[in-house]
Amino acid sequence: MTADQLFRQITLKRSFLCIGLDSDITRIPAHFSKAEYPLFEFNRSIIDITHDYAVAYKLNTAFYECHGEKGWKQLEITVDYIKNNHPDIFVIADAKRGDIGNTAKKYAEAFFGRMNCDAVTLSPYMGSDSVAPFLDFKDKWAILLALTSNPGAADFQLGRFEGDALLFESVIEKSKMWGTTDNIMYVIGATRADTLIKVRQLVPEHFLLIPGVGAQGGDLTEVAACGFNKRCGLLVNVSRSVIFAKGASHKDAVLEVTMALHQEMKKILGEKLV
Amino acid sequence: MTADQLFRQITLKRSFLCIGLDSDITRIPAHFSKAEYPLFEFNRSIIDITHDYAVAYKLNTAFYECHGEKGWKQLEITVDYIKNNHPDIFVIADAKRGDIGNTAKKYAEAFFGRMNCDAVTLSPYMGSDSVAPFLDFKDKWAILLALTSNPGAADFQLGRFEGDALLFESVIEKSKMWGTTDNIMYVIGATRADTLIKVRQLVPEHFLLIPGVGAQGGDLTEVAACGFNKRCGLLVNVSRSVIFAKGASHKDAVLEVTMALHQEMKKILGEKLV
Repeated sequence: MTADQLFRQITLKRSFLCIGLDSDITRIPAHFSKAEYPLFEFNRSIIDITHDYAVAYKLNTAFYECHGEKGWKQLEITVDYIKNNHPDIFVIADAKRGDIGNTAKKYAEAFFGRMNCDAVTLSPYMGSDSVAPFLDFKDKWAILLALTSNPGAADFQLGRFEGDALLFESVIEKSKMWGTTDNIMYVIGATRADTLIKVRQLVPEHFLLIPGVGAQGGDLTEVAACGFNKRCGLLVNVSRSVIFAKGASHKDAVLEVTMALHQEMKKILGEKLV
Repeated sequence: MTADQLFRQITLKRSFLCIGLDSDITRIPAHFSKAEYPLFEFNRSIIDITHDYAVAYKLNTAFYECHGEKGWKQLEITVDYIKNNHPDIFVIADAKRGDIGNTAKKYAEAFFGRMNCDAVTLSPYMGSDSVAPFLDFKDKWAILLALTSNPGAADFQLGRFEGDALLFESVIEKSKMWGTTDNIMYVIGATRADTLIKVRQLVPEHFLLIPGVGAQGGDLTEVAACGFNKRCGLLVNVSRSVIFAKGASHKDAVLEVTMALHQEMKKILGEKLV
């Protein structure tokens, strides 16, 4: 998917919502647990409820790997289910990989060749040749960790690197030269929305993936105020507060939280994009 | 496995060799390809030939993930095969993971709970809380990327961070406080053996995992001269030059390369450990 195609979906759906399928087996409603593929059945239910309101799904590989081969299968069939039924939805493997060239090539094969994901999240620590093999795939994306929303972000990402810039800023500055606005995005933790203004000075045109809205405490209006660009430029990810929404009916609760987010996004898009 | 137990294996086998099972389906001998589990059969053959000469095996997850659920299964049954037949051999999942706390916990479950790996390689970029869940498992190890052996290491790892130190040095200095010499190791690329001297000033007691000997060009004697400590403190990983050794018989070629490495290590250990 190109940046233009993604932007088209955003304008069509009036949404820049990404739903994180962090499908923790210990937290999914009990009736899914009896299925042969409980994570997949749970995901299918979430997708069926939310697909009109979301432009992207993000699958966190850890929640599948901890179930071994059967978990991995459920990761793959979830991607298939999305792509077969909603080919215009952007699918992110939140895998945070990062390894030397010949290994990175195999990861790219796993997520772009075998699975039909549109994007993979990557750690920048090993530098350009750990990212390059992902950029060789046409219309696929590398989403680089820049500033994450966890406390540990302070350990290295927020330290000074090679002079005045912070490490995460240097990561953005250097890595934006490795690809284009059509194949590189950045993860910017929404709990630090003020820094989005600085990020936009570095990469005015790039898409940003914003985690940390919802369970991690970020604020959607503030994120949009600081991070929007002329083709939106944001995918805001919400995971736990959508998929584990609490209510008498899980379906109704998920729909309610999703529609509330969608309403808010529709309003923001209406104000920002004329 | 504790550091003392690992050191005991090193002295018993007179070896600090780790063999990397980067089992690339396009490079394994043709006769394995017909098996139902070709990667596993290949690995089993390598393990059967080399287990007397190696103290560790390192499984690079990318080469398994690119085959989906069947690949993941072969990763798991390889770990089982090693642990069932050679329980004293140290098994490393070379996964280079790194994510926020609740996700890191799931990765730790995958590699330490479900699989019986002794260690997982981790990227330090997301900081302390991305590593902590791995340290909660008794006698298991987090192996943090410090300085890698690829060209991209120059992009960030070798830049100045918060003053005079290089980023990889700051990673070591900060992260060594997160755990102990019994649950943290560091990856130090052997192609820069001179920097091992500096690393030893920072972490005189820690084990180091040294990739890059063999196909990536590192030199064993130089690595030992600069990196040894009083209980060896090194695991030197060799992947492609062992497992894809060339010769009339693949088995003989693998054995020959492995025994040559073992001879060299035996000599070094004889000189260094009295």
